Amino acid sequence: MVKVAVDAMGGDYAPKVVIEGVIEAIRRFDVFVYLVGPSDLLKAELAKRKKFDHSRVEIVHADEIVEMCEPPAAAIRKKRNSSINIGISLCKEGKADAFFSAGNTGAAVCGATLKLGLLEGIERPGIAIVLPNLVGVSLIIDAGANIDPKPMHLLQYGLMGSAYYEQILGKAKPSVGLLNVGEEESKGTEFMKEAYQLLEQSSVNFIGNVEGKDIFSGNCDVIVCDGFVGNVTLKVSESISETIAYFLRKELLSSIWGKLGYLLARPCFKRFKKQIDYSEYGGAPLLGVDGVVIIGHGRSNAKAVMNAIRFAKEEVERHINESITEQAKKLLVKA
Amino acid sequence: MVKVAVDAMGGDYAPKVVIEGVIEAIRRFDVFVYLVGPSDLLKAELAKRKKFDHSRVEIVHADEIVEMCEPPAAAIRKKRNSSINIGISLCKEGKADAFFSAGNTGAAVCGATLKLGLLEGIERPGIAIVLPNLVGVSLIIDAGANIDPKPMHLLQYGLMGSAYYEQILGKAKPSVGLLNVGEEESKGTEFMKEAYQLLEQSSVNFIGNVEGKDIFSGNCDVIVCDGFVGNVTLKVSESISETIAYFLRKELLSSIWGKLGYLLARPCFKRFKKQIDYSEYGGAPLLGVDGVVIIGHGRSNAKAVMNAIRFAKEEVERHINESITEQAKKLLVKA
Repeated sequence: MVKVAVDAMGGDYAPKVVIEGVIEAIRRFDVFVYLVGPSDLLKAELAKRKKFDHSRVEIVHADEIVEMCEPPAAAIRKKRNSSINIGISLCKEGKADAFFSAGNTGAAVCGATLKLGLLEGIERPGIAIVLPNLVGVSLIIDAGANIDPKPMHLLQYGLMGSAYYEQILGKAKPSVGLLNVGEEESKGTEFMKEAYQLLEQSSVNFIGNVEGKDIFSGNCDVIVCDGFVGNVTLKVSESISETIAYFLRKELLSSIWGKLGYLLARPCFKRFKKQIDYSEYGGAPLLGVDGVVIIGHGRSNAKAVMNAIRFAKEEVERHINESITEQAKKLLVKA
Repeated sequence: MVKVAVDAMGGDYAPKVVIEGVIEAIRRFDVFVYLVGPSDLLKAELAKRKKFDHSRVEIVHADEIVEMCEPPAAAIRKKRNSSINIGISLCKEGKADAFFSAGNTGAAVCGATLKLGLLEGIERPGIAIVLPNLVGVSLIIDAGANIDPKPMHLLQYGLMGSAYYEQILGKAKPSVGLLNVGEEESKGTEFMKEAYQLLEQSSVNFIGNVEGKDIFSGNCDVIVCDGFVGNVTLKVSESISETIAYFLRKELLSSIWGKLGYLLARPCFKRFKKQIDYSEYGGAPLLGVDGVVIIGHGRSNAKAVMNAIRFAKEEVERHINESITEQAKKLLVKA
């Protein structure tokens, strides 16, 4: 059974929704969870819950918490007993197969990189985000692990994203594009041009530059970008979905016909909402570290936590890191 | 009467929709238009149109066209008789008060910068985009004029965006934020930290770092970013709006109740569509050049062209450039 260490104190609604998500996950999937955080608090929270299989959850005490706004490196160094540090240590010691946190992203990235180390051939980890598009899903890498990468790191993102798409999303030789301001090879900064050359010479199925519009059109499976652009893109996408939903709701509720129309078409709106709901996609894998680490959104709800645990289980079972290492070796041989 | 030179050959659907937009603009607003492009073609196109005031449109012959994918600087240098070059020359000569093109953005930026020059105190032009948010509109600058700026250019964008928001969108002392990966001062690359310091020391109403989510939340009026990030953000925003509309339509049309609900709530959907429709906002001003230049989306429809001409008229009438120059001088005195 796959064992997942979960940062019970990570996210805006921790530990309540994290525990709800964990209980739902052990109900639905064949997983064991180490719940990491202050044991008294977690015991009290678990005691409030309805019947669940107690043999599948173990509390691991951690008496420090990394706050959302703390500088990551300093927090990892100073708060040795934080839920993030102890959760990652469970992976390092081989007790857990994977770690999930919806807490301070930078701290999770920093802690995982320092404690677990990187895979052979990978110099920087990258956060991969799966987003729905018109025909399926796109994977964006990096969504913010590394905001000042070198062109070589973008090549490694392409390789890792490609391996992940193939193993987890089940498409052989997924297309890989470089997020740029235009499609022509000559577009973008010197940095982008260098990354383009590296990707073109690599073994991935590189289709050239793609634009912001291609993320949702489905023209490209794996979209490579630096962590700064990826992070902004992700936050813009979430924000605009919410804004559009708000405008639509406001208009529909502004008239009796709108309300009636809404009531009649309610199942359609529900299915629509499910399609654009980030929590369906759960957490984002931190690729490149020597272990399975899933990063959750700060606003993760119980469903997002449950889905993140499911993703962790799948990644472990499908040996995503072996696949990345193999691809990286091929690349090294080629270079 | 404000005179606008319009690149009749710019955009994916030129010259047809450009001419439609121009005719609608002269019907609605007190403007005169120089229609720039191959005169035979334009004469034939104008002849097809229904009655309009011929004294308000003058064809100016230009026999070359800059293609959408051409490298901008080379196109401006080589195609001296392009509709972009000739349109901008009309401004330079003082015949036209403003120039609008939905053609090759890079070429319009390059041509305007070379021919018209920059305002005192401004070192790089920036494209400003107005987007709807939950409480009003946000202005993003730069949306792609300059993809590799220096921190000082971001300061100048803040200043120009602030002046534009105040003059055209009518809010005194608009808030200015720096688009970053987190709100804390310590976030982002060295480049971002330098830009932060410059903005903080400036006369604009700087509120610090903002995130991708703030563009649509309405937390900030003017959002400053480099042209690479701004361009990606803009294209992502458009793309996700379309994707969401597609998902919603698909769901509503998938059942009889959905269709019925849609029919009942139709006026609501129409108002909703109007709110998120880019063409309502028309073109984007190129700020910093010594003239009024409006950049249109390649996919501009007639309404977008009409609205862009309206924006050009407003910019001319409200003396936006004088306001920018004044602000820039204050900044120079302060620095």
